[in-house]
Amino acid sequence: MKIIADENMPNAKALFSHLGNVELVNGRTLTHEQVKDVDVLLVRSVTKVTQELLEGSSVRFVGSATIGVDHIDLDYLVKANIAFSSAPGCNAEAVADYVFSGLSHLYMTKQFSWLSKKIGVIGYGNVGKTVYDRFSRMGCQVCVYDPLKEEGDSSANFVSLDEILLCNVISLHAPLTSLGVYPTKGMIGSKELAQLSAGTAIISAGRGGVIDEVALLKRHSQLNGDLHLILDVWDGEPSINQKLVSIADIATPHIAGYSKQGREKGTWMVYQELCRHLELSSDVISKDVISKNDAISTGWFSSIDVDSAVLLEEMLARSIQAIYDVARDDVRLRYKYRENKEKNVFDWLRKHYVERDELNTCLIRANNNDACNLMGAAGFSVDNKS
Amino acid sequence: MKIIADENMPNAKALFSHLGNVELVNGRTLTHEQVKDVDVLLVRSVTKVTQELLEGSSVRFVGSATIGVDHIDLDYLVKANIAFSSAPGCNAEAVADYVFSGLSHLYMTKQFSWLSKKIGVIGYGNVGKTVYDRFSRMGCQVCVYDPLKEEGDSSANFVSLDEILLCNVISLHAPLTSLGVYPTKGMIGSKELAQLSAGTAIISAGRGGVIDEVALLKRHSQLNGDLHLILDVWDGEPSINQKLVSIADIATPHIAGYSKQGREKGTWMVYQELCRHLELSSDVISKDVISKNDAISTGWFSSIDVDSAVLLEEMLARSIQAIYDVARDDVRLRYKYRENKEKNVFDWLRKHYVERDELNTCLIRANNNDACNLMGAAGFSVDNKS
Ligand SMILES: NC(=O)c1ccc[n+]([C@@H]2O[C@H](COP(=O)([O-])OP(=O)(O)OC[C@H]3O[C@@H](n4cnc5c(N)ncnc54)[C@H](O)[C@@H]3O)[C@@H](O)[C@H]2O)c1
Ligand SMILES: NC(=O)c1ccc[n+]([C@@H]2O[C@H](COP(=O)([O-])OP(=O)(O)OC[C@H]3O[C@@H](n4cnc5c(N)ncnc54)[C@H](O)[C@@H]3O)[C@@H](O)[C@H]2O)c1
Repeated sequence: MKIIADENMPNAKALFSHLGNVELVNGRTLTHEQVKDVDVLLVRSVTKVTQELLEGSSVRFVGSATIGVDHIDLDYLVKANIAFSSAPGCNAEAVADYVFSGLSHLYMTKQFSWLSKKIGVIGYGNVGKTVYDRFSRMGCQVCVYDPLKEEGDSSANFVSLDEILLCNVISLHAPLTSLGVYPTKGMIGSKELAQLSAGTAIISAGRGGVIDEVALLKRHSQLNGDLHLILDVWDGEPSINQKLVSIADIATPHIAGYSKQGREKGTWMVYQELCRHLELSSDVISKDVISKNDAISTGWFSSIDVDSAVLLEEMLARSIQAIYDVARDDVRLRYKYRENKEKNVFDWLRKHYVERDELNTCLIRANNNDACNLMGAAGFSVDNKS
Repeated sequence: MKIIADENMPNAKALFSHLGNVELVNGRTLTHEQVKDVDVLLVRSVTKVTQELLEGSSVRFVGSATIGVDHIDLDYLVKANIAFSSAPGCNAEAVADYVFSGLSHLYMTKQFSWLSKKIGVIGYGNVGKTVYDRFSRMGCQVCVYDPLKEEGDSSANFVSLDEILLCNVISLHAPLTSLGVYPTKGMIGSKELAQLSAGTAIISAGRGGVIDEVALLKRHSQLNGDLHLILDVWDGEPSINQKLVSIADIATPHIAGYSKQGREKGTWMVYQELCRHLELSSDVISKDVISKNDAISTGWFSSIDVDSAVLLEEMLARSIQAIYDVARDDVRLRYKYRENKEKNVFDWLRKHYVERDELNTCLIRANNNDACNLMGAAGFSVDNKS
């Protein structure tokens, strides 16, 4: 079997080589000629997978190690009877880590204590659910708004958007949509922002454009700056509103989902789907050399012993920052924009991202139950020494 | 025995109570009336210890938990036969941590690799020596300039200032002086800066004014910004040059020495001196309830297991950042100046500093010798698992 994979897809060679002959290519310049006699095509979002690229080729399976499918002509794939798989949710843990690192930052720098506050999540998809579940396991008062999901789903505390706007922390994880009954474009506009109290924290790591940025700037100044902003996504990326950057506590270049393990999970999910497609019995797969442990990297710190005879919320914040501190990404963005040497700072930053581990790669050893519960809920692996 | 101590002196009550009756007071508003019938006076730098304050009092010992003595009228103390002790070097480890956190930041964000580069240290006092020794134990090519120390001291590689200026990393730890044969005020001026190559990193954590800031701005632009700047001290503090802040990689508010354990060491050093002054036999002291372990706090993370089958310089950088990342202090400074709500941002930031641990509070467990050597040299405690 012939397999072609984007050279920037992590682990592709290691994972797929035992299924066939893997050739690594530049996904940006992929041509019909290159895929003509290939059986499996593995891409990232930089490759447009179109009828033009595939027609007349021997490709029978397309895998994309991404959560989005905008770059894929799904209608054509169905018509041409080409199997397809992407990696929904592969970066959900990474985004949740970002959210909690953002809150840790607010706690450490502004004494913004959120653990006992009201938390509202917008969007209950792969990311929103992961974020919601962490808050919920921590014992927070959390609610969620997702009009497309609430029907018949009792796994969460669904509420109206108005109720979300009463929360002290609002975490946005809806996609950008303009059509349908519940379009999200500008859904957080001046009317909604007017309902926020002073001291609210907004974390925006879904898609830019869901918040009306002009209205946000206005509301921020109305509240004399007493609105905490952790912003990862922006209207009009890669060009971003520098006024908004300047008032944000944390401004990052759409990297909330960029964990090392998240990217690897993307490849891993596509690999599993291909095995299923090839009808390799679960026996073959499980006996195979490639286990999930081989496919997903361990982290830089395998374990940390924490002194848990201390303030829980600070311990949590410090532990999260030890693995991933959003401040690093913020400093880097601001520095690059000041320096402004790269033509396209935003994309440059995304391309040269400083690799980070997920919280789940680190085993926290603590010696009291509350600490262990909290750290486990936040995403860490936990060893209870008590 | 009656003891009066500044209420912001960490651990004062715990340490001194077994020597006498300790009263905690506001050091800024201390009056002669308060110290009249006191035996021991313990201060920080906010208290001016003058003849006016002490004359006619029963004070026989003054302790200042600081490295500086500018706030103390030493001549008067000698004349009045009042014993005095300060805490030289108590924050040397903290400043060294700052230096290596700054370099870690440059490594992680700009791939600035310094481990195999030429390192120059200016000033070989308590801080400079600590910094020098760390580089030296790491196996770096390090040299130092200190014209007041080099005579007869063979513990370091002393060189001329010109030689320092050829280094790839220059770490400044000289005091600010205008008199004498080797005044430091403006010692790094346009002539000296002209000798720096592009790509040099400057870490300034001694005193503002040693570098000529106008000349530094000029040189930075001459080199098209290719000069890495980690700046903790500023000419004219608490008002600081915002143009310089804007070009700096890291800008912090004179907090390089602000570790939790450093402050505690200050009290501890004064405590030891007082015991000596009281001629408590070392027997009494060592049998006493107060040991150094009781006086100096443990850190948030007692140990970290690192995966040492990886790039050493990155492992070092990530480990240092897990304990103390200068980026946090930089983000906070820039945010506060943008927000500009506090009248005096610089002093506010110093007063509301987010407490940090020293690297030596954390035991790093690694399983190869090179990793262990490097981490130990950098200031960590180390457990070699190999
Ligand atoms: N910042 C990053 O790096 C990053 C990383 C991952 C995902 N994302 C983005 O975050 C968003 C969520 O990702 P996901 O993987 O959870 O997607 P998903 O498709 O699994 O979930 C999206 C959820 O939003 C809900 N939704 C749709 N319209 C809504 C509305 N009007 N109000 C409230 N909820 C609404 C949907 O019902 C769905 O449950 C996507 O836009 C994704 O592109 C960003
Ligand atoms: N940024 C911070 O938070 C922070 C913390 C601690 C110390 N400091 C400052 O750093 C400086 C050093 O602190 P220290 O505790 O090591 O003091 P120290 O007195 O022990 O050492 C100062 C050294 O500088 C040397 N020196 C004097 N003139 C010099 C010159 N012209 N060229 C080169 N070297 C010269 C002296 O000989 C001495 O060895 C002090 O000014 C101190 O106030 C700053």
